[in-house]
Amino acid sequence: MNVKGNVLVAQGGGPTAVINQSLAGIILEAKKCITINKIYGALRGIRGIVNEDFIDLTYEPADSIEQVAKTPSSALLSTRDKPDKLYCKEIIKVFKEYNIRYFFYIGGNDTADTLNLVKEEAENEKYDLVCIHVPKTIDNDLMLNDHTPGYASAARFVVSAFVGANLDNRALSGIYIGVVMGRNSGFLTAASSYARNFEEDGPHLIYLPEKPFSIRKFIHDVKFVYNKYGRCVIAVSEGLKDKKGNLLVTKETGIEDVDSHGNIQLSGTGALGDYLNLCIKNNLKIKRVRSDTFGYNQRSFFGCVSDVDRNEAREVGKRAVQFAAQGNMSGSVVIQRTGEYSVEYKLVNIDLVAGKTRYMPSKFISADENDVTPDFMTYISPLIGDGFKINYKFKGPRVEKH
Amino acid sequence: MNVKGNVLVAQGGGPTAVINQSLAGIILEAKKCITINKIYGALRGIRGIVNEDFIDLTYEPADSIEQVAKTPSSALLSTRDKPDKLYCKEIIKVFKEYNIRYFFYIGGNDTADTLNLVKEEAENEKYDLVCIHVPKTIDNDLMLNDHTPGYASAARFVVSAFVGANLDNRALSGIYIGVVMGRNSGFLTAASSYARNFEEDGPHLIYLPEKPFSIRKFIHDVKFVYNKYGRCVIAVSEGLKDKKGNLLVTKETGIEDVDSHGNIQLSGTGALGDYLNLCIKNNLKIKRVRSDTFGYNQRSFFGCVSDVDRNEAREVGKRAVQFAAQGNMSGSVVIQRTGEYSVEYKLVNIDLVAGKTRYMPSKFISADENDVTPDFMTYISPLIGDGFKINYKFKGPRVEKH
Repeated sequence: MNVKGNVLVAQGGGPTAVINQSLAGIILEAKKCITINKIYGALRGIRGIVNEDFIDLTYEPADSIEQVAKTPSSALLSTRDKPDKLYCKEIIKVFKEYNIRYFFYIGGNDTADTLNLVKEEAENEKYDLVCIHVPKTIDNDLMLNDHTPGYASAARFVVSAFVGANLDNRALSGIYIGVVMGRNSGFLTAASSYARNFEEDGPHLIYLPEKPFSIRKFIHDVKFVYNKYGRCVIAVSEGLKDKKGNLLVTKETGIEDVDSHGNIQLSGTGALGDYLNLCIKNNLKIKRVRSDTFGYNQRSFFGCVSDVDRNEAREVGKRAVQFAAQGNMSGSVVIQRTGEYSVEYKLVNIDLVAGKTRYMPSKFISADENDVTPDFMTYISPLIGDGFKINYKFKGPRVEKH
Repeated sequence: MNVKGNVLVAQGGGPTAVINQSLAGIILEAKKCITINKIYGALRGIRGIVNEDFIDLTYEPADSIEQVAKTPSSALLSTRDKPDKLYCKEIIKVFKEYNIRYFFYIGGNDTADTLNLVKEEAENEKYDLVCIHVPKTIDNDLMLNDHTPGYASAARFVVSAFVGANLDNRALSGIYIGVVMGRNSGFLTAASSYARNFEEDGPHLIYLPEKPFSIRKFIHDVKFVYNKYGRCVIAVSEGLKDKKGNLLVTKETGIEDVDSHGNIQLSGTGALGDYLNLCIKNNLKIKRVRSDTFGYNQRSFFGCVSDVDRNEAREVGKRAVQFAAQGNMSGSVVIQRTGEYSVEYKLVNIDLVAGKTRYMPSKFISADENDVTPDFMTYISPLIGDGFKINYKFKGPRVEKH
């Protein structure tokens, strides 16, 4: 790196199953750089910066880093703080005191947005600072990324859940609704499609936040599937909106809980599932209707990691340090797909990612707006990891009735 | 076996992650018995018997059986039907037609109860029939069993969920409530305790259906933990009851959905978690309160299996056939612990298991009634399987503030 100085790394936003892999990648790669003096970890993201709440990771043993890398959630803790001008000034003040010249912030689009504000303040004050955004999100909603670290492991959880839910629903017929995380983008809900092995397997219906949700059409769809298979497994996104763009969960429950980035709380409540459950019971007179809201297990469940995701999460951390060391410029690391299956890593302007949301492209959503397309299956297939080609059917013949 | 004849196997009640291991054990062992002519699988438990809905498993290839054994949920489908006298007569009529002399029914205490009724009708009609109950339940509530197949894998799910929930809650502080299955017995909820590695790890509070639940004490407990750690992770059983024995979930939601065995539906709704969530928000003015209801994932999630559970589930199936072949008498297979860790399998009178519920012994519940005891930890430890001794803490020192 051109400017000698210290490194600070932090984690922001919601945790994932592999966010500590990126952290490990950053620490291990930074340890190799002779121009770096100290490697600091800030606790609770930017809040840990203004509080000078640091741990010294410069001499962290490799086995300890590897141990932490295997655990879900943010080892350096997290925050949803959004800094104002004064907050940013405080951050730069601390950076100056500790001679921090490289700031790696692992997170989603809100975290990138925060990083952008810090970067602008550094530029204002003519303080030499390289800011690198290291991508992470289970929603898979970062612009310019084919997919983001954290997504594939969360998707693996969703697939494992729906493989089970389909078999459970097959054994004791009825309707099953699984509510999946995803504020604006349906990628995680869409992943449920990968749980299907046979034609009659669920989820039979998939509803995404990209398309307006109509209860009338929903009931119609459920009725159709139920008449066909005598059962129905449904995947819905927690971020379902009506045609006016109003969130179903707040519309039906009246509860609004907003974070500092203006995001309404969707998880941590079973309200949407319970509401859809009741709609089916009331309209279709089907007795056995069950809904599960998968909640925080999707991003934190221990031991459910896609190997592709694990490797890529590590790699974005390493690349972040390499980009900083080679180019000495700020940016956001992105993953782009180059083949079936290969990726390349690039550094793009943080502006292009910060505060923006990537949605499911139309070619991934079926014309009926209640399923995904084969294009999506091609997209998701290399990401999930092994072990889902299962067979639950006996080969033995049906016995002719006496 | 003394009486030549055919075998029928069926599955009843809620599925588990390893119920097909028991099925595989029965089929593979029965194939070895030269006195057995045909092996039938009835689809949807006893309903499949009266409907003569059979598949012929006599020549099922071993690799197909092994493939099915690995999948969660009931491969022969299930039922919650409880037969009356006429229903039992129908069953015996079909048994006579197909010369079925050995009936293996895999399930919990309701299934054992059903099997007992069938056995009584056979005795009434002097029809020679060996009825073997093969244990399965995630609730772990069968009498005379140290534990039952299905429990340890469900417990492993709960542990994996709470390892993650604890780390998630550590990263973004607040209150987290996880609602765990378990109608009357707290074994599955208690398993959450195994997620703790360090003193400050959650779940910090565990509430079981064996002890009356008081909202006042609950709020008091949560406040205490929150003041100590700045956060709180809570495991509660879906079957929580007040001191009068009324279920919290029906008391607070007014919804009652009862199955044919008289059991009120507890799962498939987020109502209890949402209710406790609101109680905390209203009483303690803590903003970030989240609740998840783990739901059906606990019994069906694909790929979350304890190896101990898998082996024992297979074994109870094999033993069931061996008991039938050797003793030619009906009974329920039970697992009893003989050492640390070893078990033995016995055949007991179905009466001793049928329709009865085993509760957590008092020595497993803390004096405060909001946690488990070291005795419980000794009990659960050999069952969960490997991989939970994790370390999420960096060794690096805290940096002194400048």
